[in-house]
Amino acid sequence: MTSTVPEITPEEQAQLDELYAAFDAASMTPLWTQIGGLMPTTPRPDAVPALWRWSTLLPLAERAGELVPVGRGGERRAIALTNPGLPGTPYATPTLWAAIQYLGPREEAPAHRHVQTAFRFVVDGEGVWTNVEGDPVAMRRGDLLLTPGMHFHEHHNTTDKPMAWIDGLDIPLVRYLDAGFFEFGPDELSTKETPRASRNERLWGHPGLTPVGAPAPKASPLMAYRWEHTDAALRAQLELEDEGHPGVVEPGHAVVRFTNPATAGDCLSTIRCEMHRLRAGTRTAAVRTAGSAVWQVFEGSGVVTVGPERYEVGKGDLFAVPSWAPLSFDSEAGLDAFRFSDDPVFEALRLGRTAREDITA
Amino acid sequence: MTSTVPEITPEEQAQLDELYAAFDAASMTPLWTQIGGLMPTTPRPDAVPALWRWSTLLPLAERAGELVPVGRGGERRAIALTNPGLPGTPYATPTLWAAIQYLGPREEAPAHRHVQTAFRFVVDGEGVWTNVEGDPVAMRRGDLLLTPGMHFHEHHNTTDKPMAWIDGLDIPLVRYLDAGFFEFGPDELSTKETPRASRNERLWGHPGLTPVGAPAPKASPLMAYRWEHTDAALRAQLELEDEGHPGVVEPGHAVVRFTNPATAGDCLSTIRCEMHRLRAGTRTAAVRTAGSAVWQVFEGSGVVTVGPERYEVGKGDLFAVPSWAPLSFDSEAGLDAFRFSDDPVFEALRLGRTAREDITA
Amino acid sequence: MTSTVPEITPEEQAQLDELYAAFDAASMTPLWTQIGGLMPTTPRPDAVPALWRWSTLLPLAERAGELVPVGRGGERRAIALTNPGLPGTPYATPTLWAAIQYLGPREEAPAHRHVQTAFRFVVDGEGVWTNVEGDPVAMRRGDLLLTPGMHFHEHHNTTDKPMAWIDGLDIPLVRYLDAGFFEFGPDELSTKETPRASRNERLWGHPGLTPVGAPAPKASPLMAYRWEHTDAALRAQLELEDEGHPGVVEPGHAVVRFTNPATAGDCLSTIRCEMHRLRAGTRTAAVRTAGSAVWQVFEGSGVVTVGPERYEVGKGDLFAVPSWAPLSFDSEAGLDAFRFSDDPVFEALRLGRTAREDITA
Amino acid sequence: MTSTVPEITPEEQAQLDELYAAFDAASMTPLWTQIGGLMPTTPRPDAVPALWRWSTLLPLAERAGELVPVGRGGERRAIALTNPGLPGTPYATPTLWAAIQYLGPREEAPAHRHVQTAFRFVVDGEGVWTNVEGDPVAMRRGDLLLTPGMHFHEHHNTTDKPMAWIDGLDIPLVRYLDAGFFEFGPDELSTKETPRASRNERLWGHPGLTPVGAPAPKASPLMAYRWEHTDAALRAQLELEDEGHPGVVEPGHAVVRFTNPATAGDCLSTIRCEMHRLRAGTRTAAVRTAGSAVWQVFEGSGVVTVGPERYEVGKGDLFAVPSWAPLSFDSEAGLDAFRFSDDPVFEALRLGRTAREDITA
Repeated sequence: MTSTVPEITPEEQAQLDELYAAFDAASMTPLWTQIGGLMPTTPRPDAVPALWRWSTLLPLAERAGELVPVGRGGERRAIALTNPGLPGTPYATPTLWAAIQYLGPREEAPAHRHVQTAFRFVVDGEGVWTNVEGDPVAMRRGDLLLTPGMHFHEHHNTTDKPMAWIDGLDIPLVRYLDAGFFEFGPDELSTKETPRASRNERLWGHPGLTPVGAPAPKASPLMAYRWEHTDAALRAQLELEDEGHPGVVEPGHAVVRFTNPATAGDCLSTIRCEMHRLRAGTRTAAVRTAGSAVWQVFEGSGVVTVGPERYEVGKGDLFAVPSWAPLSFDSEAGLDAFRFSDDPVFEALRLGRTAREDITA
Repeated sequence: MTSTVPEITPEEQAQLDELYAAFDAASMTPLWTQIGGLMPTTPRPDAVPALWRWSTLLPLAERAGELVPVGRGGERRAIALTNPGLPGTPYATPTLWAAIQYLGPREEAPAHRHVQTAFRFVVDGEGVWTNVEGDPVAMRRGDLLLTPGMHFHEHHNTTDKPMAWIDGLDIPLVRYLDAGFFEFGPDELSTKETPRASRNERLWGHPGLTPVGAPAPKASPLMAYRWEHTDAALRAQLELEDEGHPGVVEPGHAVVRFTNPATAGDCLSTIRCEMHRLRAGTRTAAVRTAGSAVWQVFEGSGVVTVGPERYEVGKGDLFAVPSWAPLSFDSEAGLDAFRFSDDPVFEALRLGRTAREDITA
Repeated sequence: MTSTVPEITPEEQAQLDELYAAFDAASMTPLWTQIGGLMPTTPRPDAVPALWRWSTLLPLAERAGELVPVGRGGERRAIALTNPGLPGTPYATPTLWAAIQYLGPREEAPAHRHVQTAFRFVVDGEGVWTNVEGDPVAMRRGDLLLTPGMHFHEHHNTTDKPMAWIDGLDIPLVRYLDAGFFEFGPDELSTKETPRASRNERLWGHPGLTPVGAPAPKASPLMAYRWEHTDAALRAQLELEDEGHPGVVEPGHAVVRFTNPATAGDCLSTIRCEMHRLRAGTRTAAVRTAGSAVWQVFEGSGVVTVGPERYEVGKGDLFAVPSWAPLSFDSEAGLDAFRFSDDPVFEALRLGRTAREDITA
Repeated sequence: MTSTVPEITPEEQAQLDELYAAFDAASMTPLWTQIGGLMPTTPRPDAVPALWRWSTLLPLAERAGELVPVGRGGERRAIALTNPGLPGTPYATPTLWAAIQYLGPREEAPAHRHVQTAFRFVVDGEGVWTNVEGDPVAMRRGDLLLTPGMHFHEHHNTTDKPMAWIDGLDIPLVRYLDAGFFEFGPDELSTKETPRASRNERLWGHPGLTPVGAPAPKASPLMAYRWEHTDAALRAQLELEDEGHPGVVEPGHAVVRFTNPATAGDCLSTIRCEMHRLRAGTRTAAVRTAGSAVWQVFEGSGVVTVGPERYEVGKGDLFAVPSWAPLSFDSEAGLDAFRFSDDPVFEALRLGRTAREDITA
């Protein structure tokens, strides 16, 4: 308040000190000493741009596989990415949890369910099945697998090789809101079947076709998005661009969003999932978005600029984008990257905002 | 009003006659003489159950192909199914237009657009392309092709064989509501390209994947539903039933609804489209639905009961189901049938109602 | 098809005649002979602009009161306005029923309910109560009273004076769609209470306040819109215009729409209700709307132009506006008019369209 | 993970320590050491039940009025309630800001706007006007006044008496999400008019009446809910209960929710506002709700139980209810209380949950 209280006498200061002490005693805090931090002119996140290299994550997950068992209590061998701007928390951004999960040969992770909504994305490997409400879902490279809130789920590795993947959840958001409920399921696996296609895919995985007799879904009834479809959809957008037709979001940049076929909305109620493909030689415009996101490079390489940071990234590398940080890509070789974000929260609460800066030569 | 006016003297009758004449002169009509017809206790449609055999329709369409050219003015060589209960109209039901359309070798039907929403369903043949807003869409056996309202469309046969299919539109509804607008397009075809997949399919025909950069759709952006997907979805439902899992609408009866992937609602704003499959040996429960429908047998055979009528039907045969008429099937051999109806109108206006009668042995 | 079949030989004509006879025998109708009537370039309604004068309607209703009892069977002493373009029907427009209803001193109209949605609007008088689902609702000059679909309702006149009002229903639409269900209620009145305010008004008639404990409404829970509020809302719009603030739809023209406070949508699912006020000396722009409407002058006078027709109208006079007919007003004295229309049907089915022509001097 | 790692050798512990150090160096955190705190079986809020007495708040606000000027920079003389479980923050609950604001005689608070959505509720006094987007809104006892997000607002006291009221905002939520944008407005008041009714009330404050010509609202267009309406709505519910009709949420407990008349949804996108009235002698059932709330007693007195706490409360007293804490009231004298909560956030994100415990004698 320096602008409006230019000069304060020692006596006035003493009175103010007394007042502030009285506030404190009464569990009160004045707005005028805090407004800049509380209500900045544009978002001023504590979270910072951050990079985690797959070449670091995977060996540590493997080492955890040797030292730490999976089982009831700890529940999952998942190691979360901690944003350096949010020390003391296991959060990648204020709202998003991102972790590498690791399951050794023939290992099992027992059933539980929770309000928190989850997905798994597989950058490499195969051999693990996740049973969601008793429906076995194979996990393979490039696939996105969902576990909507309050669906029982368990994982098991049916092979002699380990497998690692990333988990995304809204754990920080649910923790912040004090909205979480959690239940343990049976210790024994609900099924050891390993069908090629899960039941949910067989009912709901046909383009534009709704199964009329299927039970009414409370969340996305489609719980697996297979790489063959994602890849084909991205390829088509770039081919259409070549042919002079619309489809890409900007030159050389194709995007598909994973959606709930029963509502056409986001595949998860609090997390948006997308796959991006940059054609070789593409530079994207810098975009600011209110809300935070985490990306994982799936294939290819490039340079990503997040606010003041500049990362050379390749397969498996993850990075966090805080709210309103300008984000751009420059890829000589071409790049596929998976993105997840809290956009659905911002849209549901009518807080969404985006600004795009065109590239200047 | 006999119950409340048990005895009328000749003098009273003369006064009433005078009153009714005055009403007539003033463009007025009393409710009490009409209420039973106007507001029946359950729907009392003028439309009746009706059957049209493909073996009758197709030769007449072929004959029209010899005698009647296609071109500007008449616009389409389409011959509508007339419900015998709606004489003087070319309407299959009060709300639905169903027609067989026929295009000879190398023929073209010129571009136009209209508020009326349309689809084509192909019971047999191939070789015709429909260009919808300049996007060429192949038409092949088992496919459902959409033409949403106010989309320019034109057809051309690229082969030396004729092709016939059925058209469904909401012409009667739009005519009833006085809601129609119509425009001619160019006389020349917008394109003669015959790509294997239309652009709309390449953007939108991937399960659960939304193309983020595609233009915002005003109607269903997916304009072709291919038989391979429909068939696979129906087969999966019956297989899941065999395995003891939900999916069918009743024993032996699989149904998929064709939906708009951008909204998850019906593929057309006023017409619902579905494909039904009955396993061999299936008898369905009798169902009454407020609203009318038209069915076409795609494959197989069976006996269909519509109110008091009983039809033995096979490939290509069409039949109309008036509002609230009980409908059931009995199929020894198994049956695939395409259904279209005005259900979206009833749902949008909150007029939907269904009653199911369980089968008594 | 003259344009594409320039010359037909007698032999060709004979072949065509034979074909058309075969079509007829097979319950088929060719599109090419009908397309102009079926799919006009702009709506070509059968309904015509029409005027009914209150000075004609009221005496005939009074005469009916002398000659025709009210009671079970005929149900209501209502006399419908028949559009001269729709002869043989009791319809004001293709979708809307408008009638004058008349209840003599101490008379009762027994309970029934039906899918058809209804309202009453009172241009003059008072003394009748309508009990809707057992909730007594007073009817007074300027009030709009609703009877949503499948709500039991009955009327009774508690005074020694007769009372007349207009009823609006979607009878034609429901009849067209074959969507109607109707049930008789008890012959005895459910209640003879005559409270000043109905229970639905006491729960829901407070601006912006939702009663949390009220039963979940299936239709508008507010069933009476009182003149004092309507009048105040219209007056405020014109005063705001005087003060230079937005609010009117065009200069000198205030409009309020009657809405369901539980959804903010139209007060009835198939009928829009509005009150319009023209300041003295106002000429409105000519507006075409896809869909039909009926108006009743509540107070004041003016000249209304509906397509080619020009009516001098005053208190109680009703007129029908067919689809796409340009409508404009010119009022020296000022005018209040109640309007009801099928706009919600057009909006729900995505068929709405409006064109406004600015006034040329 | 004690259950699954029963015995660890010193060597194993050293290896684990090394692994955890490596995690730390790589900005990684294992789930298994944290899962209980991150994903509790039911919400385990840091926020605690808390009480602030009006008799404490008001004198401190008055003292601030003597010592601290209002003006650019500090913006408002608002003192926030700090939840003792959230030390170091000025937050009443994780999502809600609640403050007492104080404006001395003839004082002005300058214009600004922000993404954060705000309301004011007046427990006592009058004489201040808040100008929202240039529309002057009087503030009087019992009134709820809204300032939706990104609406410019400023306050001024037109009298020689001070006035205090409470402000509610979603500052903590917007700060948490990094979603905030803030702008200063002009230093001079936009208007000094003091009309009896604001323009938004004149357009939108009529029950069930939508002004067709009003600008399309982006947030609630009604920005003042007056005590006379709130009081009448609550009184009606209790009278209906006396007459044997539905309306109250439980015996003796009336509730109205303040809603947006253009959508029928909550009056603010992230905050629910309600007024509760307990009839004298009412004990309510204990209710747990996922999400947090703040209450202020408006009139009367009673005992409120929040989890383990029991408060005797009277006029002006405020208390916070953390997520899932059981809440019940026992009021001998009767009680009116204003409640605001983050329920809209929970509903939009599909996280809502409620449990009611019936009173046991």
